[in-house]
Amino acid sequence: MAVSGVLRPGHAQIRVMDLDAGVHHYRDVLGLEEMGRDASGRVFLRAWDERDHHSVILRQDDNAGIDFFGFKVLDEATLDRLEADLQAYGVKTSRIPAGELMETGERVRFEIPSGHQIELYAHKTFMGGTLGQHDPSPYNAKMDKGIAPMRLDHCLLYGPNVGEVLELFTKVLGFHLAEYVTLPDSDEKGALWLSCSNKAHDIAFVIHPEPNKLHHVSFYMESWERVLRAADIMAANDVPVDIGPTRHGITRGGTIYAWDPSGNRFETFSGGNISYPDQEPIGWSWEGLGEGGGLDVAHRKMHETFLSVVT
Amino acid sequence: MAVSGVLRPGHAQIRVMDLDAGVHHYRDVLGLEEMGRDASGRVFLRAWDERDHHSVILRQDDNAGIDFFGFKVLDEATLDRLEADLQAYGVKTSRIPAGELMETGERVRFEIPSGHQIELYAHKTFMGGTLGQHDPSPYNAKMDKGIAPMRLDHCLLYGPNVGEVLELFTKVLGFHLAEYVTLPDSDEKGALWLSCSNKAHDIAFVIHPEPNKLHHVSFYMESWERVLRAADIMAANDVPVDIGPTRHGITRGGTIYAWDPSGNRFETFSGGNISYPDQEPIGWSWEGLGEGGGLDVAHRKMHETFLSVVT
Amino acid sequence: MAVSGVLRPGHAQIRVMDLDAGVHHYRDVLGLEEMGRDASGRVFLRAWDERDHHSVILRQDDNAGIDFFGFKVLDEATLDRLEADLQAYGVKTSRIPAGELMETGERVRFEIPSGHQIELYAHKTFMGGTLGQHDPSPYNAKMDKGIAPMRLDHCLLYGPNVGEVLELFTKVLGFHLAEYVTLPDSDEKGALWLSCSNKAHDIAFVIHPEPNKLHHVSFYMESWERVLRAADIMAANDVPVDIGPTRHGITRGGTIYAWDPSGNRFETFSGGNISYPDQEPIGWSWEGLGEGGGLDVAHRKMHETFLSVVT
Amino acid sequence: MAVSGVLRPGHAQIRVMDLDAGVHHYRDVLGLEEMGRDASGRVFLRAWDERDHHSVILRQDDNAGIDFFGFKVLDEATLDRLEADLQAYGVKTSRIPAGELMETGERVRFEIPSGHQIELYAHKTFMGGTLGQHDPSPYNAKMDKGIAPMRLDHCLLYGPNVGEVLELFTKVLGFHLAEYVTLPDSDEKGALWLSCSNKAHDIAFVIHPEPNKLHHVSFYMESWERVLRAADIMAANDVPVDIGPTRHGITRGGTIYAWDPSGNRFETFSGGNISYPDQEPIGWSWEGLGEGGGLDVAHRKMHETFLSVVT
Repeated sequence: MAVSGVLRPGHAQIRVMDLDAGVHHYRDVLGLEEMGRDASGRVFLRAWDERDHHSVILRQDDNAGIDFFGFKVLDEATLDRLEADLQAYGVKTSRIPAGELMETGERVRFEIPSGHQIELYAHKTFMGGTLGQHDPSPYNAKMDKGIAPMRLDHCLLYGPNVGEVLELFTKVLGFHLAEYVTLPDSDEKGALWLSCSNKAHDIAFVIHPEPNKLHHVSFYMESWERVLRAADIMAANDVPVDIGPTRHGITRGGTIYAWDPSGNRFETFSGGNISYPDQEPIGWSWEGLGEGGGLDVAHRKMHETFLSVVT
Repeated sequence: MAVSGVLRPGHAQIRVMDLDAGVHHYRDVLGLEEMGRDASGRVFLRAWDERDHHSVILRQDDNAGIDFFGFKVLDEATLDRLEADLQAYGVKTSRIPAGELMETGERVRFEIPSGHQIELYAHKTFMGGTLGQHDPSPYNAKMDKGIAPMRLDHCLLYGPNVGEVLELFTKVLGFHLAEYVTLPDSDEKGALWLSCSNKAHDIAFVIHPEPNKLHHVSFYMESWERVLRAADIMAANDVPVDIGPTRHGITRGGTIYAWDPSGNRFETFSGGNISYPDQEPIGWSWEGLGEGGGLDVAHRKMHETFLSVVT
Repeated sequence: MAVSGVLRPGHAQIRVMDLDAGVHHYRDVLGLEEMGRDASGRVFLRAWDERDHHSVILRQDDNAGIDFFGFKVLDEATLDRLEADLQAYGVKTSRIPAGELMETGERVRFEIPSGHQIELYAHKTFMGGTLGQHDPSPYNAKMDKGIAPMRLDHCLLYGPNVGEVLELFTKVLGFHLAEYVTLPDSDEKGALWLSCSNKAHDIAFVIHPEPNKLHHVSFYMESWERVLRAADIMAANDVPVDIGPTRHGITRGGTIYAWDPSGNRFETFSGGNISYPDQEPIGWSWEGLGEGGGLDVAHRKMHETFLSVVT
Repeated sequence: MAVSGVLRPGHAQIRVMDLDAGVHHYRDVLGLEEMGRDASGRVFLRAWDERDHHSVILRQDDNAGIDFFGFKVLDEATLDRLEADLQAYGVKTSRIPAGELMETGERVRFEIPSGHQIELYAHKTFMGGTLGQHDPSPYNAKMDKGIAPMRLDHCLLYGPNVGEVLELFTKVLGFHLAEYVTLPDSDEKGALWLSCSNKAHDIAFVIHPEPNKLHHVSFYMESWERVLRAADIMAANDVPVDIGPTRHGITRGGTIYAWDPSGNRFETFSGGNISYPDQEPIGWSWEGLGEGGGLDVAHRKMHETFLSVVT
């Protein structure tokens, strides 16, 4: 099949330090729809153009950050095959029973060399889009509730061993490298934009001494104009903004980085390159990331927070 | 690999009845870059965000239409495997030698049940993007030359045996069905939007009594605002417009249908749904295609030309 | 004063044949805010970026159309002066008492040579913008309720004696001619775009044998992207569309013409030229209006409904 | 007349320290058209949607900054009247002969209490728009040359005696106050947005101890998307950016502040409120200017450069 194996980012479980504030942020300000809560109090949400049951799970905890990032795979056979491939590669995996996440099948969990927990799963209840699956309407009010991203798009994770992460994602999980940044005066790749699709990226990594850190979870906006509307809504709701609106040179996407009430960074992202596995990845030098506009086309500088503020 | 097999539309060979007029249209009005001409006089062009040598080939002929539509596949092994799969499925294939198209490797050619010539190939010279592959610039003037689409996006072909085409593309070539239209008072699919990627579609078909007809070749615009700019440039150059600017309900893409000087329809397309093979396709009734806005959200009607004018 | 005299379109009283259907259309689909109803049952509405009490008045009647179109003038002295000027010019005027329209002062009413009732008034209660007048918020949900235009922008009226209308508006009321269309094989102006501001137009006229007809009332959209969103919302609510989305060559504005439930045409308009009284108006031939894209840049033709369907 | 008196910003004479670098910036990067040079070496340029001969004049000097900012008035009688009004108000005026600026009539020059030189003039050669005045084309390539603003829009000047400036502009020159900022813990207006039209502002002032300083000259972009394109082109040409892309809460306009090679700030501005003289101005507190997003909706802070960097 042309698209098979790992399909897409399916969910991110985000730790928030005040659940009510977190729900207010992700549901009322970002505009995700609350799909349910489980016995442990976790809140499940999804964006208006998603098809499966949920994509964001909020869990209250004393520390902000990301518990795990999960990818939907094509089917159960793919899940079994990828689990076997991971084990053969030397990655320890575990199975989390179906139903541990609402409306979600069994998940294969493993830790990657950057210290993050990644999951694969083959089943989550298909709800259909909010516009409908048969003669869909062109509009409903959910498209304008809050910032109203279309979908969970990707995450950027910080941790060590980025070279090993690259090997794992490309050799075992079938991702391709779309863009990368080399470290100063080095050929070593210090940042990766990895895609399992034609998107500019489905997951990205930046080298960092401390493992298992979250830089941001990203949500897809339909246009650059909707990114500005996101800024307006952030302002109306006192959401602190880190960077943007601007364009990332890397991915060419429009962006705002901002923080949820617990200090987790999130992104409202638009546009972005199309990528294919047969194409040479786009390479950025360390200067290109900063002064070359890789991070911020308008300002062409390394923002201090980009490298230092993570959860 | 997550994305493998058939990767993307790689080229369309379009017949034009006056080569100079055709080159003027595709190069100067549409704004593709002329990459070369071969001994037979064919003209090779590409769009500013494409990476390979060319995507559009113009051939002078007494009759307009499309000679063939080619897909890039991951590698030579994939090409061999898909050729074998096609033959095993009962499709007769032929090999066209490397170099028959400029900078392009050996191609596997076959006729599909709708009467169209489809090609697969694994090699075309990688030129890199016009912005560069290393610390790319955020802008160059090619991005604003003429209508300036980013890439060849897809084509819509008309012919018989649409059900057989669906089988071939999904069972053998690994495409998934993203959206479809059923015929009046019937469950039979009369129109297909097929994707080998996460795009809304890479190729589409509408049932038609005459085989091997072209409805349109589509080019991707970065935004709905760029679709309006395309309308302005069409007007300034007396390009006749068929439908749009409007939104297709099917794919949710922004669109203008217009005609090149030989009467071949082309599209300037923006946005569009993201699609995945695990998701239930979006189904449209025949009324949904017309009155339901599947073709034209703004006007919600079947335009007579949609079903009748092809080359 | 640089801007004085007649300031802007202040209200349009529109006749609807079913008040509930009309209110649903203008309030729930177009997204105007209902500001009140008077003893006669008229409904008063305004758009989210307007400052005064209302701009649209709906009145139930057996016939659709426009009762009158009113302009706010700078102050009472201006109102008196313009009334005197009108009378001196030979135009019969009448005074309508304050309060006949909610929150509105005394109005000077007169019939223009095209047969339409035009009003001037100096007072309507200032409510402030919905974002606030002091440290205003950048966003509130009213900006996304329905089609959500920013304001009443202008109207286009059909009737005879367009040359006399031009004289009256420019010589007495201080408007300037921004653009015009000459009749076929003639220097006679058959259509006028008149501005009392820097807008592309505040009122427009097209020659027509029957007096006192409404072509459309226009509402201003913040962007071309919001015009597409308007199309989506029209489709979701079965609002019939006449022309567009497209660009008018005349004014360069983005547009959709559509009909309210009573058959009154309305427009969602974006952009548009800036105009000044010292500048030579832009002239269009009759062919320019049609084939030249004056009406419709994308399609460059005279739409039959443009000349024939009025209320 | 509804629009009379002072019509619009007509020209800014900007001092650049290296003429070639300045011409490269304003002509090749910003994309203004060079209209001529005079005997003293000054370079005259205009934007693609302007009608008169020029709007920007570059003069080489050892110090950057603005020599004068000129407004077109309706006609010679208006010029005489305003000159008399200025003198009656106690403002000393001088006449600069016709022809001192290319294709420009006699100018009335005066110094305002902030120390700036302001000019009024009634004549500059009308060239027509680059799209044409008769059946204009919807597009030409000048619309995409460089950043390609539509017009000179306004300037923001820094100096003392802002209260006196407000009096002069509103009482003598017929401007109205559209928005203002009060100083900390004070009712005193420390910043003014003044309009002689329906634009959000035609000139603005911020209180500053040193007289006759330029904060920025602003150029109007057709859309927020064009503001992003401006950022791309700035980046491709190493133009240093100060603030943005973002939205100003004040005026609601989209913006980038950036610097020309001599350190003069310029703005690429889009959208913005409509303003009228009968409407209560929008008031901002000092905190509203900073934390309230008056300057920068996305970041809601006072940027240090906003108050400190002028030429």
